[in-house]
Amino acid sequence: MNDHTQSIYSSDRNTIFPVVVLGGGPVGLFAVFMAGMMQLKCALVEALPQLGGQCQALYPDKPIYDIPGMPEISAGDLVAQLSQQMAPFKPTVFCGQTAEHVDQEEESGLFVIRTSAGRMILAQTIMICCGAGALVPKRPPLEGIEQFEGQSVFYSVPSGHGWAGKDIVIAGGGDSAVDWALVLAGSAKSVHMVHRRARFSAHEHSVARLQEEFQSGRVQLHAPYQLLGLEGQVGQISVVHVHDGAGGSKSLSADILLPFFGMQNDLGPLGRWGLDIDQQRIVTNPLTGQTSRAGIYAAGDIVTYPHKLKLIMTGFAEVAQSMHHLKGYLFPDQYVGVKHSTTLGNPGSWAS
Amino acid sequence: MNDHTQSIYSSDRNTIFPVVVLGGGPVGLFAVFMAGMMQLKCALVEALPQLGGQCQALYPDKPIYDIPGMPEISAGDLVAQLSQQMAPFKPTVFCGQTAEHVDQEEESGLFVIRTSAGRMILAQTIMICCGAGALVPKRPPLEGIEQFEGQSVFYSVPSGHGWAGKDIVIAGGGDSAVDWALVLAGSAKSVHMVHRRARFSAHEHSVARLQEEFQSGRVQLHAPYQLLGLEGQVGQISVVHVHDGAGGSKSLSADILLPFFGMQNDLGPLGRWGLDIDQQRIVTNPLTGQTSRAGIYAAGDIVTYPHKLKLIMTGFAEVAQSMHHLKGYLFPDQYVGVKHSTTLGNPGSWAS
Repeated sequence: MNDHTQSIYSSDRNTIFPVVVLGGGPVGLFAVFMAGMMQLKCALVEALPQLGGQCQALYPDKPIYDIPGMPEISAGDLVAQLSQQMAPFKPTVFCGQTAEHVDQEEESGLFVIRTSAGRMILAQTIMICCGAGALVPKRPPLEGIEQFEGQSVFYSVPSGHGWAGKDIVIAGGGDSAVDWALVLAGSAKSVHMVHRRARFSAHEHSVARLQEEFQSGRVQLHAPYQLLGLEGQVGQISVVHVHDGAGGSKSLSADILLPFFGMQNDLGPLGRWGLDIDQQRIVTNPLTGQTSRAGIYAAGDIVTYPHKLKLIMTGFAEVAQSMHHLKGYLFPDQYVGVKHSTTLGNPGSWAS
Repeated sequence: MNDHTQSIYSSDRNTIFPVVVLGGGPVGLFAVFMAGMMQLKCALVEALPQLGGQCQALYPDKPIYDIPGMPEISAGDLVAQLSQQMAPFKPTVFCGQTAEHVDQEEESGLFVIRTSAGRMILAQTIMICCGAGALVPKRPPLEGIEQFEGQSVFYSVPSGHGWAGKDIVIAGGGDSAVDWALVLAGSAKSVHMVHRRARFSAHEHSVARLQEEFQSGRVQLHAPYQLLGLEGQVGQISVVHVHDGAGGSKSLSADILLPFFGMQNDLGPLGRWGLDIDQQRIVTNPLTGQTSRAGIYAAGDIVTYPHKLKLIMTGFAEVAQSMHHLKGYLFPDQYVGVKHSTTLGNPGSWAS
């Protein structure tokens, strides 16, 4: 992966950062601001080539109505204003890469972060604001499926796939499964649909058309059946085994398997950092933002605790709680009180 | 007190309100908005004749820099935007009065609020967002002092006081105590200063001038001494008793007592509602906003819990937590999940 690190801000890259914020969505941008207000030098790591996270990437023009004090603002404008708000603090921004591994030096407690672009970042503390994490396809729990992915097992249909004349197995009962069965039935040698229920949850009209294909024999239905295992070699499947959950099983000849089981949020590498996780969310103390590892904090949609609300304003407040506790972690002998911005004055005039 | 109730919104005054918000500062205004987002009809009670709380009353032009997404906004503009944001939900607004008493009907659990303007408001739940409460002078703990207040005991010097030729006792060692001793020494018959320490915390220059007055005898110093008790009748003191904390005491002839012990936040009547209080703050569960009384919630600077930050953004998030729990209290059989404003759409189009 290329390193899209932006040098639009200062680029003191080989320093030790008091705080490294992971995630450049609204909550991450505000974390950079709060770090600055508490006079903590900060780096920001963002997976996408530009800042703004999901807001900016998926729905920049969508209006939001519940940001306190903003009767209406587009997601894109919110991100722009948060960027402007944090700008005086000149964070070092590493874009187009994610934090993959973290090691901690035993004596110093220093975190060594390695990114997907091969960059090493040194951090005294880490503030995780990765939102919902990455949205990834649900992968069926079949042994060895990884070796076929991208060659004969696909979670979405690549354009220019060239599957005419192939034996195709589609698993699932939603819109993707049904729509692609209808499309591929015209050109494939065979299309087998494997679904664990008799009913399909796809659009009514599509399901009706699918029934016609079942009757014409251009699509074979296997329901209620579920995926059981794969056979094949060097990335190429040859057989998909399915079972009916009651002792019955079948083997379907297949060149291509398309599991369409929807998407799920995935913590990705963060799930392997030794943090307490509950249902793909990082467990925090809501009053301090602390994760189960000292020095690692988290805020926003990625965290969970009793009564957690997935609202942007909640993420903002969690950032404030986290930054105050984090500063106490960095400076255990210092009293960390609330400093009001009305007293501190315009960050543009005092931030260095 | 006059009833400045504004009828700028709908005025269904004799209904039972699902939520009555106390306090029309930024957090209270946002509470009205959040109640509306959760489709709860709302009334708002504000002590001042206009909305906006301390922000609007004390520093409308002061810029704030740490509202998330707003690089700079004046307190007045913030209040204006919060008012605009909540307007679609048309709360009933009762201005110029405070909630003095609350009774709860045993069977229905309904709260009956009586305001300082004599109004009765019926509430299923109460959301307290009174900010810091009122700023009031610290009153010395002297038996019966109330009967003299405003006639011979004053916490600030009234203009046109006519105290020439009077015996005046001033208690305290800060700027107010020292400055007024210097002013009154010129015209009073006697000025006695009672201070529990030998050192004064007032401005250096004023303290130096006071030392001259001690030497000239125009001001008598009693330090380290503290107030012990008052004598007098029908509102008029005659003697102030003081003690040195080590068994010694004196009696000072006095027409006027000026206790200058600074200001403190005061919960006022809220302190007598049977809520758990800690240092003039209402104790809440930070995850639910619940006070110690079921159905009464609180948010913002008036609440306390471990790691509480007195920041506006924190108050906003507390409001969200409170409103979600409050809705569950009102509708125990209903699932209360987060609804995103991007999905609900513009409140102006659907709020009724």
